[in-house]
Amino acid sequence: MTRTVPVAQYLFRRLHELNCKSIHGVPGDFFLRALDHVRPAGLNWIGNANELCAGYAADGYARAGHHVAARRSGTGPKVGALFTTYGVGELSAINAVAGSYAESISVVHLIGTPSRKAWRTASAARPLHHTLGDGRMGVYAEMAKQITCAQTKFHEHDRVAEAVQAYDETLRECVLRSKPVYVSVPVDMMEVRVSAELLERPLQISAPSNKHDTEDQLVQSIAERIRKARQPLLVVDGLSYPYDFLTEVNALANMIPTACFGSAMGAVDGSARYWMGTLSGPTEYSSSTDLVLLAGPMLSDTNTAAWTAIPPTESRILFNLDSVEMEGQVHPVQGKVVLQKLVRELSSNAPKPILMSEKKTTTAQYTSASNAADRITQDVFWSTMSSYLKPNDTILLANGTPLIGGRDMTFPSPTQVVASSIWCSIGQMLPAAQGISLAKRDSGLPGRTILFEGDGSFQVTCQALSDIIRYRLDVTIFIVNNGGYTYERWLNGMEAEYNDVPSWRYAKAASFFRAEDHQDDYPVLEKTVRTMGDLQDLLAQDGIHAGKGLKLVDVVMDAEDVPGRAKAGLRKASEALRAQP
Amino acid sequence: MTRTVPVAQYLFRRLHELNCKSIHGVPGDFFLRALDHVRPAGLNWIGNANELCAGYAADGYARAGHHVAARRSGTGPKVGALFTTYGVGELSAINAVAGSYAESISVVHLIGTPSRKAWRTASAARPLHHTLGDGRMGVYAEMAKQITCAQTKFHEHDRVAEAVQAYDETLRECVLRSKPVYVSVPVDMMEVRVSAELLERPLQISAPSNKHDTEDQLVQSIAERIRKARQPLLVVDGLSYPYDFLTEVNALANMIPTACFGSAMGAVDGSARYWMGTLSGPTEYSSSTDLVLLAGPMLSDTNTAAWTAIPPTESRILFNLDSVEMEGQVHPVQGKVVLQKLVRELSSNAPKPILMSEKKTTTAQYTSASNAADRITQDVFWSTMSSYLKPNDTILLANGTPLIGGRDMTFPSPTQVVASSIWCSIGQMLPAAQGISLAKRDSGLPGRTILFEGDGSFQVTCQALSDIIRYRLDVTIFIVNNGGYTYERWLNGMEAEYNDVPSWRYAKAASFFRAEDHQDDYPVLEKTVRTMGDLQDLLAQDGIHAGKGLKLVDVVMDAEDVPGRAKAGLRKASEALRAQP
Repeated sequence: MTRTVPVAQYLFRRLHELNCKSIHGVPGDFFLRALDHVRPAGLNWIGNANELCAGYAADGYARAGHHVAARRSGTGPKVGALFTTYGVGELSAINAVAGSYAESISVVHLIGTPSRKAWRTASAARPLHHTLGDGRMGVYAEMAKQITCAQTKFHEHDRVAEAVQAYDETLRECVLRSKPVYVSVPVDMMEVRVSAELLERPLQISAPSNKHDTEDQLVQSIAERIRKARQPLLVVDGLSYPYDFLTEVNALANMIPTACFGSAMGAVDGSARYWMGTLSGPTEYSSSTDLVLLAGPMLSDTNTAAWTAIPPTESRILFNLDSVEMEGQVHPVQGKVVLQKLVRELSSNAPKPILMSEKKTTTAQYTSASNAADRITQDVFWSTMSSYLKPNDTILLANGTPLIGGRDMTFPSPTQVVASSIWCSIGQMLPAAQGISLAKRDSGLPGRTILFEGDGSFQVTCQALSDIIRYRLDVTIFIVNNGGYTYERWLNGMEAEYNDVPSWRYAKAASFFRAEDHQDDYPVLEKTVRTMGDLQDLLAQDGIHAGKGLKLVDVVMDAEDVPGRAKAGLRKASEALRAQP
Repeated sequence: MTRTVPVAQYLFRRLHELNCKSIHGVPGDFFLRALDHVRPAGLNWIGNANELCAGYAADGYARAGHHVAARRSGTGPKVGALFTTYGVGELSAINAVAGSYAESISVVHLIGTPSRKAWRTASAARPLHHTLGDGRMGVYAEMAKQITCAQTKFHEHDRVAEAVQAYDETLRECVLRSKPVYVSVPVDMMEVRVSAELLERPLQISAPSNKHDTEDQLVQSIAERIRKARQPLLVVDGLSYPYDFLTEVNALANMIPTACFGSAMGAVDGSARYWMGTLSGPTEYSSSTDLVLLAGPMLSDTNTAAWTAIPPTESRILFNLDSVEMEGQVHPVQGKVVLQKLVRELSSNAPKPILMSEKKTTTAQYTSASNAADRITQDVFWSTMSSYLKPNDTILLANGTPLIGGRDMTFPSPTQVVASSIWCSIGQMLPAAQGISLAKRDSGLPGRTILFEGDGSFQVTCQALSDIIRYRLDVTIFIVNNGGYTYERWLNGMEAEYNDVPSWRYAKAASFFRAEDHQDDYPVLEKTVRTMGDLQDLLAQDGIHAGKGLKLVDVVMDAEDVPGRAKAGLRKASEALRAQP
């Protein structure tokens, strides 16, 4: 007799195989009892307060797998997963899924839909709830197609065995293309049984093998270009995290002058021989480079100081996930493999010693110059907080002043910094922190999860704090409480009322969301700091440095304050917005 | 010299013409200083905590225009409006906009996008933030096309005068088709000036005139069918609100036996001669009717007790917005005009007196039978709360037990009940209440805004409470605090942990969101009630009956409790979900 498993069980067991041990979401009636299969498959169900939070959390969960500790141990998740209901649920999460697409994060979006019969007989005369009322039942999948790299719709398959194989293929695409995928399962198929033998064949997740000759030739010519370059520059960019380039770029940083864009902060060990720091704009060296190697490039305006940070030179070599671009030619090879071979090639035949005219970025220590009664300024805050960080931390920078201020921090090694390269959606990072902390716990990864949040951002997805508390996750949050969208103030209206946000009692949040105070197994620390003295007192406490439990620090700052370094750039961006085409 | 106005000003002045006096949204960098033009155009900017709340609030704002008081005075808004930023903003609101589409609500969604130059030069090599990074800049508009009835994209127009005329046409569609529309404006066009003369021609918002002969013939044959019917039944459905059928269906309810589906509660005066109440399932009369007139039909499963409430007869006449369907034929005429003529025809030549075998629905008064120490049950709660309602109230029923329990209430006349007919998205109603209360204030409409909320729903969009407080809106909220998704429990797993939601300190919410207590101009009342005694004490207070300020009542009930009447239906729905196709 053939052993069988229900479809729902199959879905979850495959996720488990990808080291995804938790599924985020909000249940819906089209789930049937699918969630009863979560635990038997070795997973946890994480019931988020809403679907947008679930989507961001699933994205964060996948990002935790990019931490160097996860790569080394091989235990980190390869995907994040969320499960929402048809229509109302999936659309509420769609902004998060689109963000995963934009930033190349592997997320599996499962959707529980109406029955196969409903799909066959759909009509405007007898519309189902959660539809648009006009019989167009496939609309949401059409929308999702724009922002996912592969889709499996179970109701389109006559045979369930065929459907689960299409699912396997979709998971493969998710991992190999590093993009979200869409998987919809009708309610009446959740419990349909499929042969368990299918599960005995492991998922085939391996990149197509490169043509060695092409690769070797390419590596040779790249190495030659580097050796001949007067002033080469490796720029590590944000997609080096999902593309798993960290080992290679760290090796190269000991051979070639190396910098990063904001979204790749933390990716390179600051003690590397040729490390130059984060490019917040053009530097003397970057302006006059004659060869730029770009690893995991995401060359958006926000990430590249509006494309000014490196010259618009012809001499660029781009290392992508599944291609390398050089002299206008796109070579269909695995970027990681080429980088690996390049490291080997350069190690055995090193480029001539390179004169570094540039100094490494060092962080000014303003803290000691402050008086205890001084208000906390952005300039002082970010450099002060550098000393708070420890190896293995994952540091999230919310869109807004944290994304700017984070560039003034120094990161111990290894750390992972999560800073949006292109999506830049406020509200993303609190639920992402929930997902990351969970993945760290699920996979036994070391280090704290630390979020630098904005007040405007916090208000977008505040219920994620309830999710953090509900699942007793270890997260430390510093809220930059400056009464508004300060980034927007600098761009479009410094004193405009529409850039204000109301002043919540942030330091009462955990109590509102009912974290039980003083529980030994889940310590909660809430605190408002207004002066440098307050901040120093806080940092002098042992408790604030421990990763365990929830820490929520409400850091009061001035509404118009931004790091001094960033002011010129913000003024320029504001002018650029005003320029006629 | 020709007077000119900036495009942004033009957008807002047209909204003002449609009695829309507030715009909801979250600002973005692609707005430039557009929001500076809101007040000069006579509007208010409502800065919501997030875009989903803004979308639901704009939907609610438009619904306030369906209140009979708004129809009578002609002052109610004809549309709601929201303004979000490109990509991240618009996608966060898309579930709400899709809901407006499904439930036929007129909402104008404005989007600030990158500049015309960016649209022309878009590429994967130089991607802008908020894009997907691959140069496909039109993706979000493609998605929106699925869930809006008309679109204007300003960047597609060479001449700005042409663009604003397309905008006018799109607004016209929004009102006439009673569906949301999509209007995107690039950042560099916000301040481009356009002739003010264009604004001097008012918007032409009138339905195409019907062919009188066709209409009259149709009305005659409908009247004849009614007169010949043994047992005719008028079923008023939810779309009677947006289609403005209220006057007509109330007149008919004095001539023909009349009932309603859940989404049309409040639409018909309970004292009408032939009023039979809300159909929660088939009744003796409805089962044996030989002619059903359906006004504003939205025949979804959830709204019609899975299509059992009325027989699947051939003898149906459907009155839609711009068509009437009879005997399988669709007549392209204005439903409202046909109904008006039908009322006139039947008034002068009345149908034969109809024998009503059915009694009007009366609400049992359990309250007096309760002991003060009794826990509050669903059966007792809804009937008790009937006595709390007053004429002109707008009552919102959140998806979940309030949508079920509301059917046990009696509504004084006139009231408006907002109960989802098809979209059924949890989290919709709190922000909708914000929008409704605001529209009532903007338009000077009478009556309170009362929300019966679920705890699961509240957690989805809790930040809407901050918006309510920020703008000092008058809203009364009763939260059914039963620890989870009770509706889901009955369908898919009564004791399943995934149907639990965490227990927040709801009665501390206003304080967390910083409503200042005891301010005379914005009184705040927060209270938890656990027993019938608590509830009776609360209802004995004068303060709870006043509409002014914020009232938030946390009503603790049992996790598995639902109104007794609904249990059989829920069991059936649960079985239906399990049935193989």
